[in-house]
Amino acid sequence: MANKPELTVVKIGGNVIDNEQALQAFLTDFAAIQGYKILVHGGGKIATKTAESLGITAIFHEGRRITDKPMLDVAVMTYAGLINKNITAQLQALQNNAMGFTGADGNLIRSEKRKNAAVDFGFVGDVITINADLIRVLLLQNVVPVFSAITHDGNGQLLNTNADTIASTLAVACSSYFNVKLLYCFEKKGVLLDSENEESVIKNLTFEAYQNLREQKTIHSGMLPKLENCFNALRQGVSQIGIGSPEMLKKDNSIFTLVTA
Amino acid sequence: MANKPELTVVKIGGNVIDNEQALQAFLTDFAAIQGYKILVHGGGKIATKTAESLGITAIFHEGRRITDKPMLDVAVMTYAGLINKNITAQLQALQNNAMGFTGADGNLIRSEKRKNAAVDFGFVGDVITINADLIRVLLLQNVVPVFSAITHDGNGQLLNTNADTIASTLAVACSSYFNVKLLYCFEKKGVLLDSENEESVIKNLTFEAYQNLREQKTIHSGMLPKLENCFNALRQGVSQIGIGSPEMLKKDNSIFTLVTA
Repeated sequence: MANKPELTVVKIGGNVIDNEQALQAFLTDFAAIQGYKILVHGGGKIATKTAESLGITAIFHEGRRITDKPMLDVAVMTYAGLINKNITAQLQALQNNAMGFTGADGNLIRSEKRKNAAVDFGFVGDVITINADLIRVLLLQNVVPVFSAITHDGNGQLLNTNADTIASTLAVACSSYFNVKLLYCFEKKGVLLDSENEESVIKNLTFEAYQNLREQKTIHSGMLPKLENCFNALRQGVSQIGIGSPEMLKKDNSIFTLVTA
Repeated sequence: MANKPELTVVKIGGNVIDNEQALQAFLTDFAAIQGYKILVHGGGKIATKTAESLGITAIFHEGRRITDKPMLDVAVMTYAGLINKNITAQLQALQNNAMGFTGADGNLIRSEKRKNAAVDFGFVGDVITINADLIRVLLLQNVVPVFSAITHDGNGQLLNTNADTIASTLAVACSSYFNVKLLYCFEKKGVLLDSENEESVIKNLTFEAYQNLREQKTIHSGMLPKLENCFNALRQGVSQIGIGSPEMLKKDNSIFTLVTA
């Protein structure tokens, strides 16, 4: 472990992408991270807005969005096109040699269309393989990979994929070559003890503490799959995981949740 | 020259991209090209259609399109997003390890906003530098770069750029490392002696023959800048240039124009 170089994988969500000033501030902090790094970004409201402007209606099944062909095209246009390429250009201006990717590029992330007996969620893919060898070659060239949450199935089909999962599977795959730190930036300062109190950030969350808080229902709903995902990644070789606001990237900021095995 | 590996740079225009079957046939032929290769693609009608659907009106000055901010966003969404990523996924299905790029990615193509005292054409860029070293690293990894005609200025601004020029400047820059063949695929079978006769393809066009045909006005209008571009590229190190239909990529096809110094 000690001899592996450091790699930081950062995931940002739509709340940062939708706010031009917040995005600029985030990218400045991200650009200042030393060593090898990868950025994974989610979507944001622009896809929904673009779909509306194009007269494409979102289809839902029991509250979950179905990605039909027109909606996939909008996701590819906005996530892999507009958002990804503007982030890449902005990082270039900050002297980071960013390169924007979908999973189809270099076969970096291959997925398979989600199978579900009951519901067809459409063009949604779950990650099956990461081309970590080629990612390593790029990193060693000081390229900063920037991933949108679009993957491919190897048969010519692009697929919409969960950005959190992309970040954790990339982190796990790269841990063969690197000492990987995975940082999830979201709208809160960390995992909260009291969801009504923004200041109740759990600074260090072990698996044991997590199990207790889950039983007590202190940690619940959307936070559960996110954290299960984190503990899985730690078990599979990721060194450390942080969950917090984009401020977490600033060197003098210590308010975030450090998730440890 | 003899010791340099072969590199084929192919440029396709909108007429191929707009036709799903033509695109599939073209990509199958492109995928079969042996050795190192790069694909550069133009736009096609989808940008105009998407702009119309989004209620964005094209602005023209004396017949030339002005790329304002909304139109640039549409170009980035469609060229760098939808078209580029679908081509990349399709080439992956054909066992080519394609990677889709704009000029911002890896700082591969830097441009500057076009300066014109009389007219501001908007977000249009002319190529100033090619990062041939990084392109070489990618090619040696058997990556097949696929470029859309979007570049960046190094200060965070994406710019719309002429795809023919991207193809020729890439070909010239890569000729330091490779023996470069540049193929322009367009809607005709080659440079025609008689623009009314599709079969009057000039099979071999030297600079001397070109000068005569230009004086006689046999070659005129849009073909002139295309050919000037070709002869410049040949003078700057490109080995050979072909102009013809996408059929030119088929091994048994000899009907196209070979432009030579």
